[in-house]
Order: sequence, then C-alpha cells, then structure tokens
Amino acid sequence: MNSELRQLIKRRGFYFLSQESYGGSAGFYTYGPEGASLKANIEDAWRRQFKQKESNMEIDSPTIMKEAVFDASGHTETFDDMIIECGKCGEQHRADHLVEDNTEIDEAEAFAAEKIEEIIEDENIQCPSCGASLSGIKVNDFNLMFETSIGPGDAERGFLRPETAQGIFVEFPRLKEYARNDFPFGVVQIGRSYRNEISPRGGLSRVREFTQAELENFILPGQDPDISDVEDVELRLYSRKLQDEGAEPAEMTVKESLEKDVVASEWVAYYLGVAQRWYERIGVDPERLRFRQHQEDELSHYASDCWDAETDVGHEEKDWLEITGFAFRGCHDVKQHHNHSNEDYRVFREYDEPKEIEVKDISPDMSYFGPEFGDQAGKVIEKLEELVEDSPEVFEQETIEIEVSGEEIEVPSEKAGFSQRTEEKDGEKVFPQVVEPSFGVDRIFYSILVHSFEQDEVDGEERNVLRLEREVAPVEVAVMPLMDKDGLGEKAEEIRDELQEAGFRVDYDDSGSIGRRYRRQDEVGTPYCVTVDYETLEDEDVTLRDRDSTEQQRVEIGSLAEKLGE
Amino acid sequence: MNSELRQLIKRRGFYFLSQESYGGSAGFYTYGPEGASLKANIEDAWRRQFKQKESNMEIDSPTIMKEAVFDASGHTETFDDMIIECGKCGEQHRADHLVEDNTEIDEAEAFAAEKIEEIIEDENIQCPSCGASLSGIKVNDFNLMFETSIGPGDAERGFLRPETAQGIFVEFPRLKEYARNDFPFGVVQIGRSYRNEISPRGGLSRVREFTQAELENFILPGQDPDISDVEDVELRLYSRKLQDEGAEPAEMTVKESLEKDVVASEWVAYYLGVAQRWYERIGVDPERLRFRQHQEDELSHYASDCWDAETDVGHEEKDWLEITGFAFRGCHDVKQHHNHSNEDYRVFREYDEPKEIEVKDISPDMSYFGPEFGDQAGKVIEKLEELVEDSPEVFEQETIEIEVSGEEIEVPSEKAGFSQRTEEKDGEKVFPQVVEPSFGVDRIFYSILVHSFEQDEVDGEERNVLRLEREVAPVEVAVMPLMDKDGLGEKAEEIRDELQEAGFRVDYDDSGSIGRRYRRQDEVGTPYCVTVDYETLEDEDVTLRDRDSTEQQRVEIGSLAEKLGE
Repeated sequence: MNSELRQLIKRRGFYFLSQESYGGSAGFYTYGPEGASLKANIEDAWRRQFKQKESNMEIDSPTIMKEAVFDASGHTETFDDMIIECGKCGEQHRADHLVEDNTEIDEAEAFAAEKIEEIIEDENIQCPSCGASLSGIKVNDFNLMFETSIGPGDAERGFLRPETAQGIFVEFPRLKEYARNDFPFGVVQIGRSYRNEISPRGGLSRVREFTQAELENFILPGQDPDISDVEDVELRLYSRKLQDEGAEPAEMTVKESLEKDVVASEWVAYYLGVAQRWYERIGVDPERLRFRQHQEDELSHYASDCWDAETDVGHEEKDWLEITGFAFRGCHDVKQHHNHSNEDYRVFREYDEPKEIEVKDISPDMSYFGPEFGDQAGKVIEKLEELVEDSPEVFEQETIEIEVSGEEIEVPSEKAGFSQRTEEKDGEKVFPQVVEPSFGVDRIFYSILVHSFEQDEVDGEERNVLRLEREVAPVEVAVMPLMDKDGLGEKAEEIRDELQEAGFRVDYDDSGSIGRRYRRQDEVGTPYCVTVDYETLEDEDVTLRDRDSTEQQRVEIGSLAEKLGE
Repeated sequence: MNSELRQLIKRRGFYFLSQESYGGSAGFYTYGPEGASLKANIEDAWRRQFKQKESNMEIDSPTIMKEAVFDASGHTETFDDMIIECGKCGEQHRADHLVEDNTEIDEAEAFAAEKIEEIIEDENIQCPSCGASLSGIKVNDFNLMFETSIGPGDAERGFLRPETAQGIFVEFPRLKEYARNDFPFGVVQIGRSYRNEISPRGGLSRVREFTQAELENFILPGQDPDISDVEDVELRLYSRKLQDEGAEPAEMTVKESLEKDVVASEWVAYYLGVAQRWYERIGVDPERLRFRQHQEDELSHYASDCWDAETDVGHEEKDWLEITGFAFRGCHDVKQHHNHSNEDYRVFREYDEPKEIEVKDISPDMSYFGPEFGDQAGKVIEKLEELVEDSPEVFEQETIEIEVSGEEIEVPSEKAGFSQRTEEKDGEKVFPQVVEPSFGVDRIFYSILVHSFEQDEVDGEERNVLRLEREVAPVEVAVMPLMDKDGLGEKAEEIRDELQEAGFRVDYDDSGSIGRRYRRQDEVGTPYCVTVDYETLEDEDVTLRDRDSTEQQRVEIGSLAEKLGE
C-alpha cells in the first residue's frame, strides 16, 4: 500500500489494530469513525442490491452455533490449516505458507501434509523466527474455528461460525415456508464470521474476525435464471485454461461467457454480472478487477464451478486479493443437514402431470420376524429396507443373507413380502441446489480505499483525495461557516439540520481555515462542501464545492437539497 | 404474550429458537425475514438519532477481546451469577432466581452467596427439575463471559465481549485524537454482545447473544449539557423514593426532574429526554414506558446515578422489561484502562489562565541508595514516591520507615531529597467522565412488537394488525396486481421498481385474493398497499390503501412517490 494512504488510514482512523493499549490483538481490527461509516455504507449498498433489488429475504442468526451443525457442514472435521512448530523456538507457522514463501510454488494449501513435510526437508526450509531447520518436523492440522462452551457445568461445545452461510442452511426447512415454497428464492445475511488464523497478516487481508455478506439462492434442479438484465455486462474472466497457459484474462459479456462455455452455470454467470455492476457502482476500479476460476485442486468436492472476484490492491506491483467467491454448491449443504439432523430438508415438487413411478417396498410377515428374531427384529427389517433401496435384486433369491449386530442371518425371501409395482404420483421430494455469492466486506472496503486514493495538485499544493462514490462516502456533504461568529455558525447549523432532515449524511466543521477544512474533507472522500459566508446572510446563497473538480458555484439555500439530490 | 401474537411471530418468522433441526440452542435466536428487517430498521433509527442528530462518532470493534481488557474492566473478576447444582439430578440453576421464585424477595441478585444459601435452607427450596432439597448445597459464582482461545498452541485467552462499551473505552486514547480533543464528544457502537446465561428464559428477554446499541459520551469534569432541546419532554419517573413508598411513578418534564432533584445528573436527564422522544417515534407505547431509578444495592460502586427505561410487555398483568440503562459512570472505565494498560488515558486540560500549583517530589541521593540497597534500591524509591502522594508529612520526620519485599527498612529523610514548592502550570491532566445510555436492541424490538399488535374487525372479520411506525416497518409499501395477467403484473412490477428506486422499502405480492394479501401485509405492519387493477391500465390510477384506517383512495401513479413521501 501507498505509504501516504497508510498514514491517512491511521491518522483519520479508518481502521487500526485493536486494543493497542494492551499490545494489540493480532488479526483483530477496530474501524474508527470514518471507517465504520464507510463499512456500514458498503453493507447498506449491498443490501439494496442483493436483498431489495434481487427480492431476497434477509435473516440474522447467532454467531455461536452448536457443534452438531458444524459436524454436518464438515467444519469440525476439515476446516483446518497446516501448522508446524519450530523445535527450537516453539514458534508456530502455517506450513503451506512457508512452502510458498520459500519455493516457486503458488498454491500449497491443496497439498497433503506429507508432501509439505517432504518439500520442507528437500528445500531445507528454516524457521522464520529463529532460523532453525524445520526438516523432519511433523506438519499437523489445526482447526480454524474458535471454540467455546455454552452453558455451565458439563457444557455443550459451541463454535463461532466460520461463515454466515450455515446460519441460513440450517434453517432451510423454516425458510422455505416463509418463501411459501416458491422456488427459486434467495436468503441473505450480513454478519460477523471468525477464523482463528495461525498467522494473521498485517492489514485487513487475513484477519480473525471479519464481516461477510452472503447470499444463498435456493433453486430446484432444472430452474434457470433470467439473465436478460445482465447479459451485456462486460466481465474480465481468468479461466482455468487461461491461467494454465499463463495468458491474460479475457473480456467478454455474461452472455458470451455462457455461449463460449467459459462459465458453466447460468446462475454463476448471472451473479458475476450483477456483482460486476455493483462493484463499479460502489467504486471498485473495473480496470483492477477480474474473475478467476478455481483450479481443480482448489474446488471443494461438491462445488461444480467456482469463481473468485479479485481486485488488484498492489502498490508498485500487482497484488490480487479475493473479495468474493461465487460457487455452485449443488445440494451438498442442504443434504448434509438433512442427513445429520431430525428434519426433512427436501422439497416436494409437483409434476406437471401425474407420473407413473416404479415403487419398491417390503411388507414383512411379523408373525415370522417377531418370534424368530425377538429384540433384533427391528434391526433385521431395517437392513432389509436398506436392501430394497440399494439392491432389490436380492429379493429374487430364495434366502437373503444379511449381517445384524455382527451376526450373519438368513431370511427367507417370501417372509419379507417384497413387491414392485407402478403407482401414479403427483410429485416427488427433491433436494434444492444452492448457488452462493459470498462477499468479504472488509476486503471490499480495503479495495475501495486503495482504488479511490489519489494525490493531485490543487492551487499549487499537493492534496490527498479519496474519490469515493457518494453512495458509500462516510459524509455526503460538509457544512462550514467561514467563521464561527456574526451569526455564520447559526446559519450553517440551520443548513446542516435541514440537510440531515432531508436524509443526507452531513458533517459540520468550523475549525481552521477553509482551505484546511476542504483538505480534511477531501482526504476522507466527502463529495461536497457547503460554505456559509457573509454574503450568505444577505442573499441566502452558499458556496457549493465539488471534491473532484474543486469547482465552486453559488447556490441558493432553498435549492441545495434538490441540487444535492440530483 | 398474547397467544395470537406468539403464533404470528412464529408463522411469519419474526424470530425463532435457532437450530431447531438439531434440538435448538437455548438462548440463541434467529431473526427471520420480517424480524431481521424490523431489527435492522430499529438500528438505523437509533443511528439516525444517537449518531447523526447528536453528532457522535461511530466505531466498529471486534467481539473477541483479550483477557487483559476484561481484567481491567473487572469482568473476569466479578461478571458472575450465582449457581447451585442439585445434588440429586445434577441440574444447575441460578440460585438468586430460585430465591425470587420461592419467596417474596424481588431482587436477590445483590445478596451474598451465604445469604442465598441461608434462605434456601430456611425456606427449604427444592430443585425445580427433580424436587430434591437444595439445603446445604454450596452456591458458587459462575462467570458469564464466553471464553475462547486466540491463536494456536499455548494460546492466549480471549473472551466474547459482554458489552460493546469496552471496545470503545479501550480505544479512548485514539478516539480523543479523532475528536481533536474537543470535549464532550460521544462514540457509539451497535453490535453483538454475549452472556453465557445459566438458564436462558424463553423468548428474547434473557438470551446468550444479543445486540446492543451503546453511546459513551466523554465529558470533562464540570461540563454540562445543553438541555434546552429536551427540557419540556414529559417523563414517567419511578424514583427510588417512590419505589420504597410503594407509590406510582411520577410524571414531570426533564427540566422539573432536575429542579426537583429527582434526577441527579444533568447528562442523565438529558438522555432520558432524548430517549423518551426516540422511543415514541419508533413505536414504544408511552403509556407502557417508565424510567426506574436503581436501588442502592443495584448500583455499581462507581456509578453515582443510574436509571433504567422499562417497558410493560405483559399480557394480562404488567411485566416490566429493562430496555435501556442510563448511567453516570464517572471516570471509572477510563481510569481502569489507564491503570492496567501501557497508555495514558488522561486528557490535558488547559486552565483559563496559568495557575500556581503546589508540587511535591523527591530527588533521591543515588550515591546512598545504590550502595545501601543494591537490587532493592528501585523498589525502595518507588515506595518513597508513593509516600509523596499519600502522606508527604512523613518526610518531616528524621527517618522514614517503609516495608519492601516484606522487610522493614529505615531511610534517613535527608537522603530522599523531598521538596515542596509552587510552580506555574498551564493546565493539568484529568480523567474524562463517562455518561452511558446503553440500549438493548432485541428487547426494544420485542417491546415494539407487543405494543403494536392489535386485533380489530374489518368487514366483519377479525384481523391481526401490527401498527408499526413507518420508520421501522419491514415493508413501507406493498405493490399488488389484482391478477397476474393481462399486463397487470408488468405494470405492478414497474411501480415496484420505481418506488424502490425512490428509496422506499417495497414488497411485491401477487398470490391469493386481494383481501388475503391485505391481511398478510397488515399482520407484518406494512403501512400502505398499492393495488393495480384493470382501470389502472386505462387511467394510470392505482388504489392506495391505509393499514390503520383500511381506507382506500385512487392515486395517480405519477404522484405516488410524492404522496408516500409525505
């Protein structure tokens, strides 16, 4: 990052390392006044687009969730990073990052631990803290969820959610009722998520607590989006193929990306288009934005296609930061909760017209099973029911061999009462599929800061300016009396109150020279300044100054709100 | 709660117990679509008042904080509830609540554990789960903070914040820079807080994760607020005296409350007035709102005066719920962090004119202390410096007796180089004081639901209606085509898009009869419905229906936004 921008961020309190009075807490940042407003405005802009314009529902779920939820989602089992502990100084490092930092390898995260150990040995990688060799040291998995206990005593394990998405998935049975079973429907959530990073980096790019804005769009198999609204949006796509070839990303419209089979899922392509437009609207520089397709080894086993929006946040050389992930997740998430919980996560889908369906089932002869298997009868029948699903052909044999509680059992086929017939059905239960755009609010915030910062010259002096889009600027208009006397202050306060009443985000500043106040507003991205001077008291006109052009014009107070509203 | 309202909350998904597919997670609630919007609107309304109108700064700090912060704030030591474990069934209960439920005692929280044990014994209180006697069982302290580990390995202890306030206090040294040392200044934060309740109750009144909106106003000793803007606001005040007398609360204005010495702090009185006005604006029923003064034994040792805003959320009988606390906290919080951290939390306050100040200090003769006390010299001098502060008169004696590392030591006074003189000083360092209004968003949300729910009769049928204020209603206007054919749907969608573009929160509904759709909107509090019918296609007029009066009028599409904007 540009060092002037870094200083500005600190001086004006956009964000800073939290709890510095106590030595700071690595990976935790506090957004100061300007930053908190910018961040909240980005969230509001997201809500306007992804909730209101897209007609989705919003929910707000807890950040602490039960262990069972994460057993189902797979996070307790696999949400790990590889860790290695130096035998000499005891410092712990992320093993894949050591490999990336010390070799030409770019993406070591997908490697197995053994492979990482091998590379550390071969390359004789040393501890970055003390210089001791790390050869021969075991690489372990470290789960990245923050753990806690819920309730007193033999408390229940709970975790801070690593993504807001699970709070949506787990409530799907209810949410589909609120959507009146009208698919597709989308559910959004903006909130905190947590990852206990082994080595958080400086700045907002790898932190332990962050804000996500996620949309889970639930669709029934076969449902397609209407892409007409975004089909002409231009995207810069960095497909797997182009990455492999070491080529540059290709530019094409949403429609072309589908026609050329670059993007596989229409839903993913649709959201790339919506997101591209939204990024531009809130001030991400389109020249420093691209969509990169995941490599095979980056893909989760259930995701059929995944693209990341990345912004270049580098200073002297390019430095790509993932700001959003777009994934077609199939029915994975919903199915996991269906299998692990007590609820039915499927959706009854009516056929256009009734269909003849082949039905297989058994009708066990209980006068045989009861006396024959006693306590075990239930389990025996359960096994037989499984066979109906998995290998109905066994019922054609005279006896069926099954294993129950470790014992081999033979059941005469005729006692099972197997039957196979066709029935007319009105519909069937199916799992919904999910397409998920998942936005990292902090990283978007960071990208906007980097992309909007400029230094130019005004009246022969260098100035810092954040060319923030008005929709996200912490302050839309600053009102300033030339001096705080002779009634100028009162007049300015009146104007401030009126503009605030009209719904604008307004700041009031009466200290220092006007030039200094302009610069103070420029560097936090305030698009307009209104100055009240002695003439104002006579003619009710004020000076309206534009941040970008620095041009000034006289405007009547009465028409100020309207003028600013344009 | 009214059972119709309870059903409505569930049916329309205002909120529900989280993770019910997995048996639910006690004390954790998820806000469904209508609820999340209502809650977000309450937060926005709060921000408009307590950030924008009051010209305060907003910050956004992490929810996980270091142990050292809570050592300073006192939460690791004293943020406890009393717990008792049944010797028979092992169930754990909040001991003070058992006492309250089984005796005439109202507020047992302030009692010592021994006192609680005594009452349990005397009253022969039994385990509510199994009925066994709890006599003779020890009552223990249970800390209510959720604990977690930050980072891998010999991880650092961290806690989920029990209040958003500490995230503000701890950053005071920076925040005062952002405020350019211009006191008083206020800092607000809206965010999650956590309390690991022993026995969370049903509903939103005692939960483990909740949202707070807190304002910390930093003032220098002697600074008073300008109360002119709220002095005539009527308050219903339930002073300690009236509570003791068993009388009813008294009504008076903010100004009267100060004149009659009912409220001690002008700052507290000011915020009671601001809050009263804000509650009414967002739909808290003023007839069911009061401010109750804390009893002596409820007060924290550092708080000189404290009032709670309480709403009656009962159904058939009154049930008072604390929704906001207003406390004058003195310099307690800032001083604690000053003493525990590495930073100076004081503020340099310039005198109006330089003052003669009496200065006492010592200038120890190191040629004596070094050889005489060796390693201990530093500690000896530290002790002497303490004496300068606490009892300077000892330096008049010939020798001074002190205790260092458990040893009695005598120091000749002359070696200390004590001096006492007057110096001219421009100012002094002082601790700022804090006045804190702390709002519980979930409880305000709950109060608004209870206060706005009504059942009335429309066209001979009973209807449910939430008379929500428009500022917080999830939807401001619902647009409905009479039928989704003959172009009515397209027309209605156009109107929806236009109203959305104009900044309204809009819903679109095209399923079911118009009557049924009206009722669906009434019960979630939508103030206006716009219906598109066949006439609309000819004359560009729509039907605008008012939720409360159910009156309908024809309005031109072109003037709809303006009409709704009034």
